[in-house]
Amino acid sequence: MEISNRIRGFQASPIRRLSPYARAAKARGIKVYHLNIGQPDIKSPKEALDAIHSYPNDIIAYGESDGDLELRKALVRYYGDSVGVNITTDDVLITTGGSEAILFSLMALCDPGDEVIVPEPYYTNVHSFARMANVSIVPVTSLLEDNFALPPLNMIEERITSKTRAILLNSPNNPTGHIYSAKELEIILDMCERHDIFLIVDEVYREFCYDGLKFTSILSYEKYSERVICIDSVSKRFSMCGARVGALICRNRNVIRETLKLSQARLCSPTVEQHASLAAFGAPSEYLENVKKEYEKRRNFVVKALHSIPGVKCSRPNGAFYLIARLPVEDAENFSIFMLRDFDYKGETVMLAPAEGFYESKDLGRDQVRIAYVLNTEDLGKACECLKEGLKAYNNREI
Amino acid sequence: MEISNRIRGFQASPIRRLSPYARAAKARGIKVYHLNIGQPDIKSPKEALDAIHSYPNDIIAYGESDGDLELRKALVRYYGDSVGVNITTDDVLITTGGSEAILFSLMALCDPGDEVIVPEPYYTNVHSFARMANVSIVPVTSLLEDNFALPPLNMIEERITSKTRAILLNSPNNPTGHIYSAKELEIILDMCERHDIFLIVDEVYREFCYDGLKFTSILSYEKYSERVICIDSVSKRFSMCGARVGALICRNRNVIRETLKLSQARLCSPTVEQHASLAAFGAPSEYLENVKKEYEKRRNFVVKALHSIPGVKCSRPNGAFYLIARLPVEDAENFSIFMLRDFDYKGETVMLAPAEGFYESKDLGRDQVRIAYVLNTEDLGKACECLKEGLKAYNNREI
Repeated sequence: MEISNRIRGFQASPIRRLSPYARAAKARGIKVYHLNIGQPDIKSPKEALDAIHSYPNDIIAYGESDGDLELRKALVRYYGDSVGVNITTDDVLITTGGSEAILFSLMALCDPGDEVIVPEPYYTNVHSFARMANVSIVPVTSLLEDNFALPPLNMIEERITSKTRAILLNSPNNPTGHIYSAKELEIILDMCERHDIFLIVDEVYREFCYDGLKFTSILSYEKYSERVICIDSVSKRFSMCGARVGALICRNRNVIRETLKLSQARLCSPTVEQHASLAAFGAPSEYLENVKKEYEKRRNFVVKALHSIPGVKCSRPNGAFYLIARLPVEDAENFSIFMLRDFDYKGETVMLAPAEGFYESKDLGRDQVRIAYVLNTEDLGKACECLKEGLKAYNNREI
Repeated sequence: MEISNRIRGFQASPIRRLSPYARAAKARGIKVYHLNIGQPDIKSPKEALDAIHSYPNDIIAYGESDGDLELRKALVRYYGDSVGVNITTDDVLITTGGSEAILFSLMALCDPGDEVIVPEPYYTNVHSFARMANVSIVPVTSLLEDNFALPPLNMIEERITSKTRAILLNSPNNPTGHIYSAKELEIILDMCERHDIFLIVDEVYREFCYDGLKFTSILSYEKYSERVICIDSVSKRFSMCGARVGALICRNRNVIRETLKLSQARLCSPTVEQHASLAAFGAPSEYLENVKKEYEKRRNFVVKALHSIPGVKCSRPNGAFYLIARLPVEDAENFSIFMLRDFDYKGETVMLAPAEGFYESKDLGRDQVRIAYVLNTEDLGKACECLKEGLKAYNNREI
């Protein structure tokens, strides 16, 4: 009477794994700054909260499996107006978070043993979804020294085998903050065409591009429509991570039609939160503009603060709200546990996400952490101070 | 560039598959009585709706992966007070609907190619979850003539192979309405013990037991705790199907610990609807008592109405709010499409769920439909009249 090999011995998400230590620290009265998880402190749009407060139905009933039609229409309008891409409601499946859209994409394209190529470090939960679907993640390593740009094409191409079903990108990238350029995307699309494989691009952070960079959606390349799946979500755009409302967008009729069967199995995505998401798309454009400004300010702040800590190196991300930092320690997980279990600075400490779990290749990223700069600059300042003092204490500790 | 074998050619859920015909009928101005889906017309508890209307947070934030602690505590109290079973919060993972709890159970126990034995007809979406997890459903047929009681033990036992990982029951049963007796459960548990396999029991309809029958939860058998997974949900209990809040309950520490990794991958279940679900558990006991009385009244009504239609046979279910009816037609799916596409009676018609998709064995259930008696008796009466007239028209049609 054993559990499956599928889940046995697979590492829990590094974003969540140290939560018990954090809980224990809080129980000891210590304030914990959460840099481990992309949970913004930004308020959800008033429109979304109002929609919840005035939820009109007296039965919280099943919705359609492909999602609320009004919400799908709102997405179509948003893509036209804000992303500059023409889609129709037939191209949209509402999913239970971007998470489910990734899982469904893997299941729709891959059989057990099939492979998906992913530049690493990569969004760690993709590893779990791949385990759930018995799909192998084949990594191509991008480097902190290159600001995590797309690895050379030949490195990617040599990973393609007869089992490769897709390449999966995330842009702007979690955990690196890198934004793939239009040129990078075209090169990849051309390669997918030559090898007749799909390209999945997770664009949930597309509003968060800094330094005046313009974002190019993978849906812009209509020539390649049939082989492109785009992942979307309201989680980060509207600071509604708990809503669990995302979308899988694809112009390939066959993919949508067959994936709908997966949606039908689980009946529907959450009804009240779809209602709130619909309202969120009606928020004035200043909402997103202000959020973006705020994150750019935080990005500037945290990069500077980290660079001022002896021995810390980090990339300067152009997008999303994460960065990978190399710390002057051998084992960043061990250090992260130390920060929660054995350390505080003026009654405060920091929770980090050890970056090793964002790599598929063994022994990479051991001295790295992912930092989510989702706190206001005042808190980020205190968190960085804790980190600085924590590194001192850790490296001077008696073992 | 093909989709996976995993999803290719698998039949969409019979509960949802005919939806396009229903939409078209509605577009023609025809009223459609939905007997196809277990979407109750019962109001959600006032407490749950009030909780939504007064949702206190201004960020719809991620919750814990194992679920809101207060909700888990409420479940523990509910199990103690209403089910007569002692569990702790450590035994509970909140899931995104009972659906996800079933999917996670299959993934946690089975590797691709492994087998799970299920009495058929069975909850059709389990077939889809098994496809998603590449697990084989091995059916044991129960019969309308036996009121769908558990098939003889030797029939079940001879299906057990080295690949069998679990038996999956649903009690009260969807689609048959059968409630497994304490004796049936003990026999099955003993067999699971002898063969060292798990028993998964979906008890989401446990409040809906009629004719004075007492429900026995699988969690009552503490001797077998290590091999039992119980599936729960607020969907039917509180008429909150759209909330997507369920639970996986298991006293086996290893199962919970490893399954939590699947929960961590998708971060959390919907936040606002967990908040509403917590409130729903605070509804006065009359809420459920009244709901149960209402369903028992409907059960009595619909069984009588169906028996009065020439050629229709149905079981007399003791629980849940479904029944399987045999119709005087060769192909119930064809008939169900006819009802939506080619027929109306006084501007009204009925949507049914063809039962073939509730059987794993080929060619079973072709003349059967599942009926969800989730409408008030007045509407049920009209729906049955439509069905009666529809059968006449169908069997007299020119082909």
